[in-house]
Amino acid sequence: MENKLKIGLIGLGTVGCGVAKVLAKRDDIEIVGAAVKNINKKRDVEIKNLTTDPLTLANNPEIQVLVEVAGGCSVLEALEVAIKNKKHIVTANKELLAKHGAQLFDLARQYGTTILYEAAVAGGIPIIFPIKTSLSANTFSNVAGILNGTTNYILTKMEEENLSYSDCLKKAQELGYAETDPTGDVEGYDAMYKIAILANIVFNKRIDLSKIYCEGITKITANDIKIADELGYKIKLIAQAKKLNKNDEDILDIRVHPMLVDKRKPISEIKNATNAVLLNGFPVDRVMFVGPGAGEFPTSSSVVGDILIIKSEIDKNNGSILPIATCRHGEYAKQIDINETINCYYLSIVAKNTPGEIGRIGTACAKFGINISYIIQKGVVNNNSASIIVITEECFEKDINNMIAEIEGDNITKVVNKIRVMG
Amino acid sequence: MENKLKIGLIGLGTVGCGVAKVLAKRDDIEIVGAAVKNINKKRDVEIKNLTTDPLTLANNPEIQVLVEVAGGCSVLEALEVAIKNKKHIVTANKELLAKHGAQLFDLARQYGTTILYEAAVAGGIPIIFPIKTSLSANTFSNVAGILNGTTNYILTKMEEENLSYSDCLKKAQELGYAETDPTGDVEGYDAMYKIAILANIVFNKRIDLSKIYCEGITKITANDIKIADELGYKIKLIAQAKKLNKNDEDILDIRVHPMLVDKRKPISEIKNATNAVLLNGFPVDRVMFVGPGAGEFPTSSSVVGDILIIKSEIDKNNGSILPIATCRHGEYAKQIDINETINCYYLSIVAKNTPGEIGRIGTACAKFGINISYIIQKGVVNNNSASIIVITEECFEKDINNMIAEIEGDNITKVVNKIRVMG
Repeated sequence: MENKLKIGLIGLGTVGCGVAKVLAKRDDIEIVGAAVKNINKKRDVEIKNLTTDPLTLANNPEIQVLVEVAGGCSVLEALEVAIKNKKHIVTANKELLAKHGAQLFDLARQYGTTILYEAAVAGGIPIIFPIKTSLSANTFSNVAGILNGTTNYILTKMEEENLSYSDCLKKAQELGYAETDPTGDVEGYDAMYKIAILANIVFNKRIDLSKIYCEGITKITANDIKIADELGYKIKLIAQAKKLNKNDEDILDIRVHPMLVDKRKPISEIKNATNAVLLNGFPVDRVMFVGPGAGEFPTSSSVVGDILIIKSEIDKNNGSILPIATCRHGEYAKQIDINETINCYYLSIVAKNTPGEIGRIGTACAKFGINISYIIQKGVVNNNSASIIVITEECFEKDINNMIAEIEGDNITKVVNKIRVMG
Repeated sequence: MENKLKIGLIGLGTVGCGVAKVLAKRDDIEIVGAAVKNINKKRDVEIKNLTTDPLTLANNPEIQVLVEVAGGCSVLEALEVAIKNKKHIVTANKELLAKHGAQLFDLARQYGTTILYEAAVAGGIPIIFPIKTSLSANTFSNVAGILNGTTNYILTKMEEENLSYSDCLKKAQELGYAETDPTGDVEGYDAMYKIAILANIVFNKRIDLSKIYCEGITKITANDIKIADELGYKIKLIAQAKKLNKNDEDILDIRVHPMLVDKRKPISEIKNATNAVLLNGFPVDRVMFVGPGAGEFPTSSSVVGDILIIKSEIDKNNGSILPIATCRHGEYAKQIDINETINCYYLSIVAKNTPGEIGRIGTACAKFGINISYIIQKGVVNNNSASIIVITEECFEKDINNMIAEIEGDNITKVVNKIRVMG
């Protein structure tokens, strides 16, 4: 006969309540207690033994698995204590894992416990555990995705309803898709944590967050989206980690920024708060996973899935760890600087409508060895200025930046947006 | 230190050679021997100890995992003997699992061994193991997909190049996407085996193959595809298993047939030999997996992934079985007859161009309680015949069939194609 698994829950917000509701329907898992910020807050689930101190759970000998869905880095100590008390961990906390994952995984290895974190990336989509199991025969070259639902929702609304960024942000906040302080989402940090976690397991290396280039969507205009659409592209916030080979050495190109995505690519079709993860590797070639990136219930699917994986192991062998599911990456990856990367660029330029402007742009491009693949002047806009759109062929980031400095040097030309084009 | 895992390989065709090439790059797995039809056939991999008798491998005490990628049901005995000899099984054989899976899983449970079969459905896409692990908290209501690459390739070509079914089949055969005898693919049997396997794990029930309605793509014309396109649909061969509730009892609606798929659904965008699997359940809501459905290397990704999952378990606990990954479905599902299902229908009708034809169709629909949502007469075709297209609202399959019999009774009207519309 199977034993009831006893768990502790840190966090009873949206995801925590979802987990509690899903577990309430099962008789094989018992929530022994939960740690919350405010014990008296009204919730639509009933949980016994509420505490404001997560350490109470970390030190409770009855608890076998500590489930953390509170978010933020202040739970680090509680998780460390729990691991030292030989508890397994299930967490949805991308920030914590991206910043302190290495020390947590080391500790878990030392104490023979398991950390699973399916919900930390792409909500309900199973991606972490499949990479570590069914896809473990692969050598990956690339992982990319739409990993933040808030920004994808805003970009979708901007496109479909031809609205400004700030109008769509307001709408997203009203609907609960964006937080009151939306910085973490709209500046790309949330997606950065997630791509760091994915790069970590896909390339089996530790990732230095400070070396990931990160740019959000706040500068994207409805006009950029409209022009991109006319040229056959959608604009998406893409998180990507790619393995390059430089001088016979592997180097990772990891970044988060908006991109023009060819409409013929399936990932361009991912709308609203949906997430997608693309993997390229040998021998699998290319696979894509699509699903809900957040939400009370979809995220609970991943959290409870992880709990059930651990339960199955505990039932089988008194809780020994799962070797495949454990991270083994000891070394830090070499990471390329954004200036050394090669991309195609979309440039939205406004210039005083003086003769020779197109010529000056062309000359500046030539000076830095940049080939133009597309250029159009879209008539004269307000204040006697001309709007010019350029799409370049592949060139170094440092060269496009030098070129931009050159054309902006005349004080009559302004590059209002530079957006990379997905290859 | 990890031990080398010793495996036997049944089948050295496309997939078998792919598996051998992928394993040749690893030093943790050794192919002890392989069973083939023709020992002297030239192959681009070197394998020691070739035999024509799979039983040699099943009885070889050195072999820990027997990997079967030969296909067909003649390998059943060898797998049974291997299980009795306490070997674990990795197989890509959808026909064998759909027809004899129940007895194999029972035997494996009895002897304490594991059967993994990620490659049997949707080639390189990880779907079987994720359903059993990361998604195991879910109660599923529906699984659907494009599970046969050959037919999807043919339908894509028919659409993109406006060619006939037989021209595209020929092209597919030339490119190696279709076999000389294409029956298994084009009549839907391959997709039927795969949806039976998926339904089995998604709904935890045994499936009776003879109760699955199966219809292939041989009757689809370029004209159907063109008209569907004009109406906002693509035509895809869809395999689907849905849980219905009738009189408080779960009943499964499992079938394979061409469908009109709304172009706004992402699955309509799956092209060529690519496969896709859609899952609906609670709490995950909806997830989609997309990737290569066949091929030497993508299929090897799944086969070798399964081998590595078993290796990890063997290294950890001397080969005890994986409870989550084991099928537990003892009972047969109740399955609904296609005549009792409810669908919307596309009808392509040719009628002698006599007065009142549209009226006769309308009257027949009314007689069986069928509402028409769209009807168009597309002018007069050859022999003074008119082409009429009807799309109905939801009605019983038995009613649409009665309606068709009624209008065909006048000997001047012929329903040349009836295609169901995806809801």
